[in-house]
Amino acid sequence: MKTPSQHLDRVIKEFSRLPGIGHKSASRLAFHILQMSDDQVSNFTDSILKLKENIFTCQTCGGISDNDVCHICSDHTRNGTIICVVEEQKDILTIEKSAAFNGTYHVLNGVISPLDGIGPEDLNIASLIEKCNQGNVKELILATNPTVEGDATCLYISKLIKPSGIKIMRIARGLPVGADLEFTDSVTIAKSFNDRVEI
Amino acid sequence: MKTPSQHLDRVIKEFSRLPGIGHKSASRLAFHILQMSDDQVSNFTDSILKLKENIFTCQTCGGISDNDVCHICSDHTRNGTIICVVEEQKDILTIEKSAAFNGTYHVLNGVISPLDGIGPEDLNIASLIEKCNQGNVKELILATNPTVEGDATCLYISKLIKPSGIKIMRIARGLPVGADLEFTDSVTIAKSFNDRVEI
Repeated sequence: MKTPSQHLDRVIKEFSRLPGIGHKSASRLAFHILQMSDDQVSNFTDSILKLKENIFTCQTCGGISDNDVCHICSDHTRNGTIICVVEEQKDILTIEKSAAFNGTYHVLNGVISPLDGIGPEDLNIASLIEKCNQGNVKELILATNPTVEGDATCLYISKLIKPSGIKIMRIARGLPVGADLEFTDSVTIAKSFNDRVEI
Repeated sequence: MKTPSQHLDRVIKEFSRLPGIGHKSASRLAFHILQMSDDQVSNFTDSILKLKENIFTCQTCGGISDNDVCHICSDHTRNGTIICVVEEQKDILTIEKSAAFNGTYHVLNGVISPLDGIGPEDLNIASLIEKCNQGNVKELILATNPTVEGDATCLYISKLIKPSGIKIMRIARGLPVGADLEFTDSVTIAKSFNDRVEI
């Protein structure tokens, strides 16, 4: 099929590269761009360019921030003695949304995954140990994903830090709220029986 | 919840405005943008800006084009005596992909919809009648969507053009290929019985 416009094709191709957007969605978005006003389009592209230019990685936790130190690390009402260890920067947003945690964070930037060639030295583990050795930290909550790689990374970190006497916790695994026993996999059910809590 | 970055929030808001993208997908896309290289990001935004700057509406059919006249209208191997009337510019791409049609197109830029305040004078109907009055057109295929508004627009156009003796056709309605009778609505089934064809 001959294409009506190379410019349109280029936009469709660029949109298709984004995660979760196939060729059909990309076409739809490209045609939507055509119908947007010039102001709306320049707002859209400007926001993306500004994001790339002005975003920082927090020097303390490794999360995203508009400044050198993020709003969580610079907030003195938060409990600095508890550190929640997460895989990715976006995990901080997810946990913050639940409002279940009032400590600080530490971003690993990945998990140990030998198959992908990612070892402990590729992650922000050294800086975590340094933080723990300063003597202020009382509890470490390991909140990596409940996957084989996430569990292995937790095991690795806990072995390194346990000797310092810091309490090391793992977020609970079990049935998600609203789930149905019938459709839950056996590993999760087994986990929820093993880790049962008294009511 | 306090936001980690205003720039990130702005990108998420801009992405959420696009069709079919909710807040969660928008966050995912924004974090993907953060991980893209500077070149990739500038390519992405540049493609969008170029699209807005360089796209034309074909003077003949109203479809999108990189030039004043689109590649279909300027293609002499296509049958100019058959015109396919569509609602939107993107419908041309959908029909072209099926490779079922070798004539030319005419984009109405909408359908008659009194509830939305869209009357015949808001659509490209005058230019269609002009085209038909030039004497070259032998057949008009009305390919608006099979909706109440699409049908009403077809009826309106056919009443205007019928006196000129041009053959006016409507694309067939019935069960889509691969569908299941069990899950098809009664109106479609009734239509497919009324419009049955001999095999």
